[in-house]
Amino acid sequence: MRFGIFQSAQWPEGTDQQVRLHDAVAQSVLADELGYESVFMTEHHFSRHGIVPDNLSMLAYIAAQTKQVRLGTAVSVLPLHDPVRLAESVALVDQLSGGRFEFGIGRGYQWGEFDGFGKSLDDRVERFDEAIDVILRTWKSDDPLTHAGKYWQYRNARPQPQPSQKPHPPIWMATVSDDGFDLCVEHGWGVMLPQAVPIETVAHWVTGYRAAFERRGKPFDPEKLILARGMHLGVDDASAWDEAGPAYEEFLALARKVAESPTGNASPMPFDSSAIRASAMICGSETCIEKLQEVRDLGIEYVIFFSNMGGLAHSLIMESLNRFATSVMPQLR
Amino acid sequence: MRFGIFQSAQWPEGTDQQVRLHDAVAQSVLADELGYESVFMTEHHFSRHGIVPDNLSMLAYIAAQTKQVRLGTAVSVLPLHDPVRLAESVALVDQLSGGRFEFGIGRGYQWGEFDGFGKSLDDRVERFDEAIDVILRTWKSDDPLTHAGKYWQYRNARPQPQPSQKPHPPIWMATVSDDGFDLCVEHGWGVMLPQAVPIETVAHWVTGYRAAFERRGKPFDPEKLILARGMHLGVDDASAWDEAGPAYEEFLALARKVAESPTGNASPMPFDSSAIRASAMICGSETCIEKLQEVRDLGIEYVIFFSNMGGLAHSLIMESLNRFATSVMPQLR
Repeated sequence: MRFGIFQSAQWPEGTDQQVRLHDAVAQSVLADELGYESVFMTEHHFSRHGIVPDNLSMLAYIAAQTKQVRLGTAVSVLPLHDPVRLAESVALVDQLSGGRFEFGIGRGYQWGEFDGFGKSLDDRVERFDEAIDVILRTWKSDDPLTHAGKYWQYRNARPQPQPSQKPHPPIWMATVSDDGFDLCVEHGWGVMLPQAVPIETVAHWVTGYRAAFERRGKPFDPEKLILARGMHLGVDDASAWDEAGPAYEEFLALARKVAESPTGNASPMPFDSSAIRASAMICGSETCIEKLQEVRDLGIEYVIFFSNMGGLAHSLIMESLNRFATSVMPQLR
Repeated sequence: MRFGIFQSAQWPEGTDQQVRLHDAVAQSVLADELGYESVFMTEHHFSRHGIVPDNLSMLAYIAAQTKQVRLGTAVSVLPLHDPVRLAESVALVDQLSGGRFEFGIGRGYQWGEFDGFGKSLDDRVERFDEAIDVILRTWKSDDPLTHAGKYWQYRNARPQPQPSQKPHPPIWMATVSDDGFDLCVEHGWGVMLPQAVPIETVAHWVTGYRAAFERRGKPFDPEKLILARGMHLGVDDASAWDEAGPAYEEFLALARKVAESPTGNASPMPFDSSAIRASAMICGSETCIEKLQEVRDLGIEYVIFFSNMGGLAHSLIMESLNRFATSVMPQLR
């Protein structure tokens, strides 16, 4: 199996933004040193839930301090980006990192982020489709880009630099919908499944994703599937939950809150306290290995861990990442 | 006097983009080690003239490899940015760099960049004014930003992170116009004057800038003035020009070409071959000290050097930066 980390620099009340950002960097550098496969960085706006609005700049900073780890967005919220600017930034960070970039994309879900940017969630699928079309054309075509779209317009634009990886970095889409799975299989993109859902739901999604391969007569490709999981590895199950459980629940509660509209439209973020505990790998190493084996039994070979929970001390996160690399990683490679 | 470098990663025919980008990084890291004051990075799009479209990500990468050098945009082309995204990215890089950011802003001048983004140069002043207003409000006000502008709209947006420097990083405007000088004096921003113009023209602009202080009854502040100059320090005047003269002329010719519209609208970039040679500090150390003394006599105490000319070998640029730090810098501090 392959294991990465999935980062969000949160900003709990009373903490310092610079410290929070540098803690996230330090965890990423440690992941590189310990042989984790990847660091995926979220993009969030306008709240304490995530203070990395520009995950490309953050990953550029991390790229300069790391050697082997893959660096990805998880995700770039396409409806909120100028797609040509995003294509340029991705290509630049891919070049600076020596071709270590992974391009995670999504349609977005936080009402407050869309509203802040004067946009509606209603357009998000249309915007996503137009944006990724523009981005792929800048990377795949030798012709200059001229585009008269509904949301963006360009004339004779030749974005530079081009990506180091040809024709472009691997693409991952955050999706759990059948039309999303179809898009991924059609384009050869990977799928990123979210954290904090029961293993049964994950199994249901994997079935849906496999069906998308079948519809196109292609064999299921386990290289194209990532699952996110909350993770904190303690000395045993009880102490791990004591350390990280409340922080993880608090993180998810805030995630749900920022996603909702003021009129209470249902957030797509799942939330069920006992299911969360069951889903997360907040435990000792034996339980963690069992839970990863369950995941593997579904055909999932790549898991990224959300460990930088707002309320969990940086030193404990560093210990947990170390402990996982020593006690769990070698058992499942 | 204070000395910085002013970088543009160009991409001459037959060269490799990754090498060009890493050369620019290496020159920046050397500038940090040698005690230069700053590294300013251009933003350019769609041509070989500059392949750093996202100077924030580039500066983030450089921030991670440097300790003391100030890191600036020169410039961020405000009419082409979403101002809230730009405010977020600047604040993030300011935080990551420990408060070393300098925010250079401009109205833009390259027809091809505006056209590529589906924009007109005609709107550039209006767009600039609206963008900087939005950016400053996100940094100076505790209230969430709601803005129904002509070009951008936001609702209840609270951009995060906030800058490390309070209320925001120093701002520099690239301008040579009286209305630009007035804006700078009014807001307390510095002025960045361009390279490749005769010292007489620089003197004329400094007079105009001083007049803007007088109109407001404020004393002229030499801390708020930067001059850019082409620079290559050789063992003597002749060998310096042999090494770098043709590369500098070629760079400026391309700069002029990309700025022009296809209908031949006059570019604002100056171009006069003998004047260019006279303006640049492509010479030995004695001549360089004389030329810097002329600049200093105008009341200019901060010069940033454009040395990374497309056609000049990286090794010669590194030698020149070293030579300047050893032979010239100590004479003028």
